[in-house]
Amino acid sequence: MANGGPEIEQLIQLLARLPGLGPRSARRAVLHLIKKKEQLMLPLSAALDRAVVAVKSCEVCGNVDTISPCSICSDARRGESGILIVVEDVADLWALERAGVGQVRYHVLGGVLSPLDGVGPDDLNLDGLIGRAHGYSEIVLAMNATVEGQTTAHYITDRLAGTGIKVTRLAHGVPVGGELDYLDEGTLSQALKARTEI
Amino acid sequence: MANGGPEIEQLIQLLARLPGLGPRSARRAVLHLIKKKEQLMLPLSAALDRAVVAVKSCEVCGNVDTISPCSICSDARRGESGILIVVEDVADLWALERAGVGQVRYHVLGGVLSPLDGVGPDDLNLDGLIGRAHGYSEIVLAMNATVEGQTTAHYITDRLAGTGIKVTRLAHGVPVGGELDYLDEGTLSQALKARTEI
Repeated sequence: MANGGPEIEQLIQLLARLPGLGPRSARRAVLHLIKKKEQLMLPLSAALDRAVVAVKSCEVCGNVDTISPCSICSDARRGESGILIVVEDVADLWALERAGVGQVRYHVLGGVLSPLDGVGPDDLNLDGLIGRAHGYSEIVLAMNATVEGQTTAHYITDRLAGTGIKVTRLAHGVPVGGELDYLDEGTLSQALKARTEI
Repeated sequence: MANGGPEIEQLIQLLARLPGLGPRSARRAVLHLIKKKEQLMLPLSAALDRAVVAVKSCEVCGNVDTISPCSICSDARRGESGILIVVEDVADLWALERAGVGQVRYHVLGGVLSPLDGVGPDDLNLDGLIGRAHGYSEIVLAMNATVEGQTTAHYITDRLAGTGIKVTRLAHGVPVGGELDYLDEGTLSQALKARTEI
């Protein structure tokens, strides 16, 4: 294969590791980048350089942002609602933000309990959640509607039992087996409105 | 939308412009990059920086490479066969190389004649082809099997008429309406073997 030198070959191999891109689509993407060097390749290269330096994980909630605490944790208005939404992943946080769920705060677990995969309570950002939960009047558990997600929700409910904090979960508008990031904004919004107490 | 600062938002918007990625898959790709910062984001950033500097268009054939003339044009063994394959695009050149068509040289037109889109002979690398054709014993026209591709093949055949150079086209193993880059290697190999004289 003489796909134009090691620099191009390496770029293809790295792009092929992105979700949604395989070796073939990575090649097309690289050719597209080379064709649009000024309009796309240079800006993308600069944007990646900036992001590498700027992006960090929020020390409070686990969100990704360019500041820590992140812009959501730093926003005082978001604390006033007293609502803390617990999500598995940053993608789920973004999905809820796109759904426009209002002035709330988030806590990103960084995964779900999954004994088969060797993921226990210590592998998740659970102590951080327990530590900050007392500052909120309601904890909304917005895990995916999978077995692992619901197991994690039960575990958190048990941990918070006796603290007097109201613990709720998303309404069963979420299709069973589905993942938050793939839902349309309307469904997510409805599921949050119809949340029920555990 | 508080997708974590302008640096992240800009990265998503740029990645969404790659073929095969939309806004949603670009978001997933960026989150994946941030999660795999050391293993993927840093190497990709560095690879892009290097490619931006290194990648150039071959002054002879139009291929993309890090040297000009490109590694194919610089390879003396590839000149010995006397075969020059004319393709629309660099993606087609790469597809033929993957099919292992042997020690041949290429000429990338950079598109096809398409009066409806305002693409005439002056917009393609046609003069370059006519200028170097005399150094080869056979010109293989490997355009896509589309109306525009075949029109371009006819135009090149007319321009080369009277030069005594043998002009061939790919065999009709290529599905009508299909594009080279999507074909499997076996079909491409067969199509080249069964090429017929125009």
